[in-house]
Amino acid sequence: MAEAASTAASLHLGAQECIARQAAETPGVISFAGGLPDASLFPKEDLCRAFLSALDGRTAALQYSWPEGLPDLRAWVAERLCRRGARVAPEHVIITSGAQQAILLALASAPRHARIGMNAESYPGAFAAFHGRRARLVGLDTRADLYYVMPSVSNPNGQRMSGDSRAELLRRLARHDAYAIEDDAYEATSFDSVASRPLLADARDRVFHVGTFSKTLCPGLRIGWLVPPTALAKRALTRKQTQDLQANGLTQALLSDYLQHADFEQLVRRANRLYAKKARLLMSATARHLPQFRFREPRGGFSLWLESDLRCDEDALLRSALERKVSFDLGSPFRRHARPNLALRLCFSSVVADQIDTGVARLSNAVAAVAQSA
Amino acid sequence: MAEAASTAASLHLGAQECIARQAAETPGVISFAGGLPDASLFPKEDLCRAFLSALDGRTAALQYSWPEGLPDLRAWVAERLCRRGARVAPEHVIITSGAQQAILLALASAPRHARIGMNAESYPGAFAAFHGRRARLVGLDTRADLYYVMPSVSNPNGQRMSGDSRAELLRRLARHDAYAIEDDAYEATSFDSVASRPLLADARDRVFHVGTFSKTLCPGLRIGWLVPPTALAKRALTRKQTQDLQANGLTQALLSDYLQHADFEQLVRRANRLYAKKARLLMSATARHLPQFRFREPRGGFSLWLESDLRCDEDALLRSALERKVSFDLGSPFRRHARPNLALRLCFSSVVADQIDTGVARLSNAVAAVAQSA
Repeated sequence: MAEAASTAASLHLGAQECIARQAAETPGVISFAGGLPDASLFPKEDLCRAFLSALDGRTAALQYSWPEGLPDLRAWVAERLCRRGARVAPEHVIITSGAQQAILLALASAPRHARIGMNAESYPGAFAAFHGRRARLVGLDTRADLYYVMPSVSNPNGQRMSGDSRAELLRRLARHDAYAIEDDAYEATSFDSVASRPLLADARDRVFHVGTFSKTLCPGLRIGWLVPPTALAKRALTRKQTQDLQANGLTQALLSDYLQHADFEQLVRRANRLYAKKARLLMSATARHLPQFRFREPRGGFSLWLESDLRCDEDALLRSALERKVSFDLGSPFRRHARPNLALRLCFSSVVADQIDTGVARLSNAVAAVAQSA
Repeated sequence: MAEAASTAASLHLGAQECIARQAAETPGVISFAGGLPDASLFPKEDLCRAFLSALDGRTAALQYSWPEGLPDLRAWVAERLCRRGARVAPEHVIITSGAQQAILLALASAPRHARIGMNAESYPGAFAAFHGRRARLVGLDTRADLYYVMPSVSNPNGQRMSGDSRAELLRRLARHDAYAIEDDAYEATSFDSVASRPLLADARDRVFHVGTFSKTLCPGLRIGWLVPPTALAKRALTRKQTQDLQANGLTQALLSDYLQHADFEQLVRRANRLYAKKARLLMSATARHLPQFRFREPRGGFSLWLESDLRCDEDALLRSALERKVSFDLGSPFRRHARPNLALRLCFSSVVADQIDTGVARLSNAVAAVAQSA
């Protein structure tokens, strides 16, 4: 905690981030924060084998390589997308330093001050990127230059885009010559492990498709991908190279070996069963301890999105929670526009299953201590 | 080669890059291209040990982590800079996805269309970043918003900035409220292995200091660092997070363990002796086979910068070289402004020592086949 506090001070972090960091480094805190995968699922032994194999008699993984990424990984991404109904060749895939970078590369195709259409709640990393480009954020039902969507499994609420919304979005893309960023980061986390048809499959030349290994395998690998519209592929690759030359060669080689020899699909199915179970536990604990909050049952993802009619000082709520040894994500960073009512994102992904009920009970006490009815 | 050609076509690469890729993938080609470290120096066994140790009983390396990077690595960077005369605390260091990203983060502090002062020859990755910001490139002796320099060992010519130029630059930074990016990527490659005083030590609040493990250890790790002016640290960190959330956690953990247990300084000294020897071989081969070219003896780095009074079609020269199974870097991407006379960058770093003379002889034939006196 001392270290967290001093780091926070030297970085001039905001009060909320200071408290969040303190919570992350305080023993005994039950954490619903951060959107982290369950570390017990990380296939450490397989990754170690893959590492040693990638370096066995070869040094290519340690040397510079091409900006578009390893052929094997690009083929793996393309093959998976083809199975889901899209027409993607390995040469269309750019391996990126995580999905965040892929979003940034896609965003660069939009003008500064662009209108970006998106859900009322979405991924804060995308908001940060959009604000950096001075974009104007609007609803999905509005004309925009670029749309940012998570059609298969959305963050923070774990929903699939409805057929009507999807059809309407596809019409808008065609009618207005607009592009969409399809952030597919959570696609493989649907609890039923059934793959869904990507937006890319229905608008190949209008969609920047974004994916990642961070939710299925390990975020520390920092490997994601971008499939840009074919006409914008060259520019996207030049931008990728200008950003950081190439994605990490060592973890690309490791991943490529892992995917060849380990059973990734089995890992994903096992993960989804575990996440589905934790989601059920969190839903019942929330219904029991936080009846003032509404939520929709997720079909995948890592979190519940909770909204209430309460109002409260968010910093005070974070502090109150930390005193009770529980942490969570405030809702406001997930909102397109500020709203007065209190919302929370509770992640079930990384919390230990048998601590979920206790954690939500603590959170309920924290809320009771600081919130008022609107 | 078939694969390289088809990849190149699908990426719509320029003719020069197509030929360069073909050369890189054609067996028997002696390569002076690319600025790659000598792969025989990669400490594979130590890195494997570090990898297994970083994952032994822990999963933090595979999980999300903070955007500023691992405390151990930040401390290592700060300690090394302090030994060289700068006042840097670990909290001032941001671990980046290579030096390229650090340059981009620093550049973001300058306005679009900024005037950037730099040498007549410099690093193409920086040019790409500057062009992306629509910057105007000017000489170091001119008033600018931002200066981009490699004071200790410059790319492509391996020179140290003179004392007079350095003093003049420091005066400009103070007088014009300007900033400098100190790209220190090659600092540790000086043949005498003597550390030099960074510009940062004399203008802590005006200098973005950039470093990397790519030239001393392995580029595939993709780990570099940025020390921003203190007043701009928060903004730089926010930008880092927006770019790609964090540098690769797995290779950060691996590096941190490696630096703790292996003898990095000894590796660097051994590398520098090897590079110094290859530089001598390349200088004498160049003097023998390419007498039309001028060059300055480098004090470090990976390459010689060759200028001539010849003119030639650069694509034709690349093709002529590839036919003779030798490759190199054209000079034009390293130049601030286009010039009519032929220049080349020849890297001695990754070529096998006893192929240097043969390689330069082949290059001499390639030049003779296509170049004309100006």
